[in-house]
Amino acid sequence: MTATQTDALVIGCGPVGLFLVFELGLLGMSAHLVDILHEPGGQCIALYADKPIYDIPGQPCCTGRELTQNLLRQISPFAPHFHLDQQVSAVSRQPDGCWRVSTSIGEHFLTRTLFIAAGVGAFVPKQLRVDGLSRFLGCQLYYHAPPLCAFAGHDVVIVGGEDAAVANAIALAQPGPEQAKSVTLVHRRDVFQACDDDLSHLAALRASGRVQCQAGQVTGISTSTVGDALTGVVLSTPDGQLLTLALDFLLVCSGLSPKLGPVSQWGLAMQRSQICVDTETFATSEAGIFAVGDVVTYRGKKKLMVCGFHEATLAAFAAAALISPEQSTVLQYTTSSALLQHRLGVSS
Amino acid sequence: MTATQTDALVIGCGPVGLFLVFELGLLGMSAHLVDILHEPGGQCIALYADKPIYDIPGQPCCTGRELTQNLLRQISPFAPHFHLDQQVSAVSRQPDGCWRVSTSIGEHFLTRTLFIAAGVGAFVPKQLRVDGLSRFLGCQLYYHAPPLCAFAGHDVVIVGGEDAAVANAIALAQPGPEQAKSVTLVHRRDVFQACDDDLSHLAALRASGRVQCQAGQVTGISTSTVGDALTGVVLSTPDGQLLTLALDFLLVCSGLSPKLGPVSQWGLAMQRSQICVDTETFATSEAGIFAVGDVVTYRGKKKLMVCGFHEATLAAFAAAALISPEQSTVLQYTTSSALLQHRLGVSS
Repeated sequence: MTATQTDALVIGCGPVGLFLVFELGLLGMSAHLVDILHEPGGQCIALYADKPIYDIPGQPCCTGRELTQNLLRQISPFAPHFHLDQQVSAVSRQPDGCWRVSTSIGEHFLTRTLFIAAGVGAFVPKQLRVDGLSRFLGCQLYYHAPPLCAFAGHDVVIVGGEDAAVANAIALAQPGPEQAKSVTLVHRRDVFQACDDDLSHLAALRASGRVQCQAGQVTGISTSTVGDALTGVVLSTPDGQLLTLALDFLLVCSGLSPKLGPVSQWGLAMQRSQICVDTETFATSEAGIFAVGDVVTYRGKKKLMVCGFHEATLAAFAAAALISPEQSTVLQYTTSSALLQHRLGVSS
Repeated sequence: MTATQTDALVIGCGPVGLFLVFELGLLGMSAHLVDILHEPGGQCIALYADKPIYDIPGQPCCTGRELTQNLLRQISPFAPHFHLDQQVSAVSRQPDGCWRVSTSIGEHFLTRTLFIAAGVGAFVPKQLRVDGLSRFLGCQLYYHAPPLCAFAGHDVVIVGGEDAAVANAIALAQPGPEQAKSVTLVHRRDVFQACDDDLSHLAALRASGRVQCQAGQVTGISTSTVGDALTGVVLSTPDGQLLTLALDFLLVCSGLSPKLGPVSQWGLAMQRSQICVDTETFATSEAGIFAVGDVVTYRGKKKLMVCGFHEATLAAFAAAALISPEQSTVLQYTTSSALLQHRLGVSS
């Protein structure tokens, strides 16, 4: 269990976590970031990638994706290390004051400063709550990002009506080595939300019979008594019928919902599920752990990105002072400081 | 003395003052702004219009002018009223709790909330400190923005070595109805800083004898005993000589320097020339007066735009709550709120 050593570990790759890396970089600190999502951007990618944002100072309008791309470009001089598709699961203080941080897929870090920029929480898939179903997780039941190749030649039922459900249905119905034997898309009604390309692709696959669609809600399962296998799901259809769909694999894509998760168990002072911070330093109640963005609370707190950017800035200064107490506290400006321009790689 | 009535008066049109107008506008408040400079932008225009800024969140690089233009575009849906070339000179509380505000050129406002976003102060011309000179101010002595037409046909000495000095020398030496009889540019050494176009224009005017340049520093004046007129300036030249230049008008363009000015006399709680604020509301010690940006101090304060934008946001919310205590405190987002999008003029 070797651990990656770093000045700073940032939990959460939303816009505030990304800008934090920028402010840390200006102060000479490099950072690793962890996020449960598959790409950086947090809510900006998961919830409003293509929706307009109007209240970023000096940007009359940008989409969540554009803002994320601009932030990634802005922090690129500091070469941050991203550790995606995983969640921080354990945090413990070491005898030397560093924090040992472990993730859900077994990565380990030793960091001098830890920043919680977890927003409203980790975006985890919404669970399908049906009695007896959860024991099939990882063998016949999958959420969102499945190992599609395992489904080749099998009967697959996909639950969901939005982008991910539609995209997976298309991927599994495509002719090729990964093609499923059958693909049935289950949604409470026969209306799907996805980009126009995917919707017309889906329509073509339905017309050719490669994808079946069935309106209904999963209310039960059927299992085989031999070997405890999941053999089907029971649907309650809009006209009040019960219908059983046979399957080999069940893929649930019912969207993501934020969950604060393990953070709430680290012993930090909290108020109504939010982390209490000192507005001078954005330090939590544990030395060396800072928190910024929507996950924090203080008098006057507004859950706006413009506030998170400020919080990230002050947290970075406080962390730099903790790590290098000897360093000058004279504020330098990117417009005029040769040191900052050197760190940005733009020395004139 | 009719007074303009407004929800909000903002002192200072720097980036933080401009973004404040945006946040006020989202909350349904319209604003008037006052600035001593001739155009909005504050330091971004006066000090680094063409210099790069790297630390605005989501903008890897922009100049001070670009940032200003983007902010002006961002606040344009709220149609702010600019009152430029003037300084707030007096502020007094009215019996109904409003503030009466007067400016140096005699504009008057009655405002329910007053925001000081004055940065490091008003940018006022650096004074030429020579015994006996100041009594000629406004008749033979001018700073920076002079009434050029009054100089037509006269001997003019311009003091300064940067943009404004060079531009004024060019304007006065141009053939035409406003041409001066003679133009002498005085700077401590024969090196001038201006844009390339102006420098080559100046070189041509020197070659043709229309502009004289003289290295030296003004150390005294000569006056006529009849009628108390300024007749010349005494220069100390780099080689230690004293030299008198005859003149009708003296124009001093030695740059701008920030002065907090009258703000310091309004009875607000201050610390080391900075205004003390409550970080929940950015309220000063006087009800209805808020302060944001480089002019304020609080525990952890950093004089960075990213912090000023946050301060402006919280001040706007606090002001809106003061003016409309009945209004909902549920935070709305520009991405999803029909009300905010209507105010922005982007309703979908």
